[in-house]
Amino acid sequence: MKIAIDAMGGDNAPKEIVLGVNKAIKEFPDIEIILFGKEDEIKQYLEENPRVEVVHTDEVIEGTDEPVKAVRRKKQASMVLMAQAVADGKADACISAGNTGALMAAGLFVIGRIDGIERPALAPTLPTIDGKGFVMLDLGANAEAKPEHLLQYAIMGSIYAEKVRGIAKPRVGLLNIGTEEKKGNELTKKTFEMLKEADLNFVGNIESRELLQGPADVVVTDGFTGNMVLKTIEGTAGSLFSLLKKAFMTNFKSKLAAGLVKNELKELKNMMDYTEYGGAGLFGINSPVIKAHGSSNANALYNAVRQAREMASHQVTQIIKDTIKKENK
Amino acid sequence: MKIAIDAMGGDNAPKEIVLGVNKAIKEFPDIEIILFGKEDEIKQYLEENPRVEVVHTDEVIEGTDEPVKAVRRKKQASMVLMAQAVADGKADACISAGNTGALMAAGLFVIGRIDGIERPALAPTLPTIDGKGFVMLDLGANAEAKPEHLLQYAIMGSIYAEKVRGIAKPRVGLLNIGTEEKKGNELTKKTFEMLKEADLNFVGNIESRELLQGPADVVVTDGFTGNMVLKTIEGTAGSLFSLLKKAFMTNFKSKLAAGLVKNELKELKNMMDYTEYGGAGLFGINSPVIKAHGSSNANALYNAVRQAREMASHQVTQIIKDTIKKENK
Repeated sequence: MKIAIDAMGGDNAPKEIVLGVNKAIKEFPDIEIILFGKEDEIKQYLEENPRVEVVHTDEVIEGTDEPVKAVRRKKQASMVLMAQAVADGKADACISAGNTGALMAAGLFVIGRIDGIERPALAPTLPTIDGKGFVMLDLGANAEAKPEHLLQYAIMGSIYAEKVRGIAKPRVGLLNIGTEEKKGNELTKKTFEMLKEADLNFVGNIESRELLQGPADVVVTDGFTGNMVLKTIEGTAGSLFSLLKKAFMTNFKSKLAAGLVKNELKELKNMMDYTEYGGAGLFGINSPVIKAHGSSNANALYNAVRQAREMASHQVTQIIKDTIKKENK
Repeated sequence: MKIAIDAMGGDNAPKEIVLGVNKAIKEFPDIEIILFGKEDEIKQYLEENPRVEVVHTDEVIEGTDEPVKAVRRKKQASMVLMAQAVADGKADACISAGNTGALMAAGLFVIGRIDGIERPALAPTLPTIDGKGFVMLDLGANAEAKPEHLLQYAIMGSIYAEKVRGIAKPRVGLLNIGTEEKKGNELTKKTFEMLKEADLNFVGNIESRELLQGPADVVVTDGFTGNMVLKTIEGTAGSLFSLLKKAFMTNFKSKLAAGLVKNELKELKNMMDYTEYGGAGLFGINSPVIKAHGSSNANALYNAVRQAREMASHQVTQIIKDTIKKENK
């Protein structure tokens, strides 16, 4: 199995990307990796390995580039070449920590959408306090969504949770502003009806208040709401951690306390650590495409490789294709 | 000035409601209070005061009651009588910690909407890490909203922030999934255009990630998104505090640390304490209506009285009426 990786994407590229590759190639003897990017920079960090190939290119899509334009014009960009390798059948899956919008555009225009899937969805695995995590989608691939799109998200998320996360009959929940059936806006009310009828383990409405408690294995929502909720979780956790840090720095006693409880706090922070869960899958594209977090370190990239490998080996894309074909008959 | 209060609403009624009234009546010599509810229960806690009147009723709207039906059928309910007192001109403002939906229905059907306001909005003041807080609306009065509604929310929120919170030229932000002008869904894109043209101190899009940092004094959003974000903040903070508590209980050392940093942690929790900010205003109703938090304690109720008093004395409702009339000309 071959995995194409954009070595130049993300805040810590190419160093952390390459360090993640070094780790992954040792861990998984059944994979080969193609790295796209500036060869001399990559080689500063790369441990020579016959299963790792470097394809040099100078062009890079920046975080500030307008996504669609960048993909159309920067044809030699590391991200575009990476996607092209998948489109040409030279790789089975791809990973980038770069510009999210550009990666979605590259997925859509270079690799292409699965027949019958109307909208792709961005699907990260979010942490829960029990350490199990859950898949949530769409987290921002499309700002607008119809009930039929949310049904497709639920099907894709459910297949992923079963095949890659190993959960039998994944519980599918609908993110809503109340738990009762008739709650919400028109989108959630209609979606509720469709999910009830679908061949899924639908557990009903989920309130955002309970998300971190892990009330479902797959949570579906439109991209606007999903993105909003994700950023609210990040912002709230970040604000509280910074307040906590300040509280511990107040005086001698509090600093002493910080020392005493250091390990427990570190564990707490790890529990909320996205890097353990890999990247966000871009579901609905013809091959596995993984968006690694922009601030990915080597561990995050390593986990994204693990995830891409599992998506490819468990044929998640093929199963989605078959299921959607049956569904649309 | 007279304030009507539903003594039976909320998880801690009537005890905490009445204790809050005892405090408020001493603090504010210019107010009178009418309490609606079960007289014998109320009198267990009430400190006799010539400026506090008790109107007895046995009927109560429960948290589980269907809002509109409850308001229509339970005509003698403490909440309905409270609203009726305002409608009849016997009181200038009202407060309930009871069923939110029922209070909105009582506001709309008993007191009535301000001419020209299409949708009322639920507007709490949310905490920020600098302790200043900001007004956010709508947090769930209406699951669907149009750009014109969001413009009206912005106008009402801005008037409230200026008159009651004492902020000159309040900064008004639009909650969105990106800071750039063209980001978001159709609703936010159109609203952005309207806010830019309005006679407001519009500071552009606000991401939910920054909310607790206080990037604006007034943040507008549709009720579905607002409710979702509010519950996400509550859920994330709650989950983190419970993880933190667990971390401090791990072993002898961590328990020792907890003792050393107790005051600082308490301060941190207070910073996120909604009770200091009063209740949520139901903006767009013909008189000030305050929804106190369901779990209100005496302090929260006291602050809701302060808030109702300020809304009434600063004629917030009248200013909203005049502004909307001008706006709609």
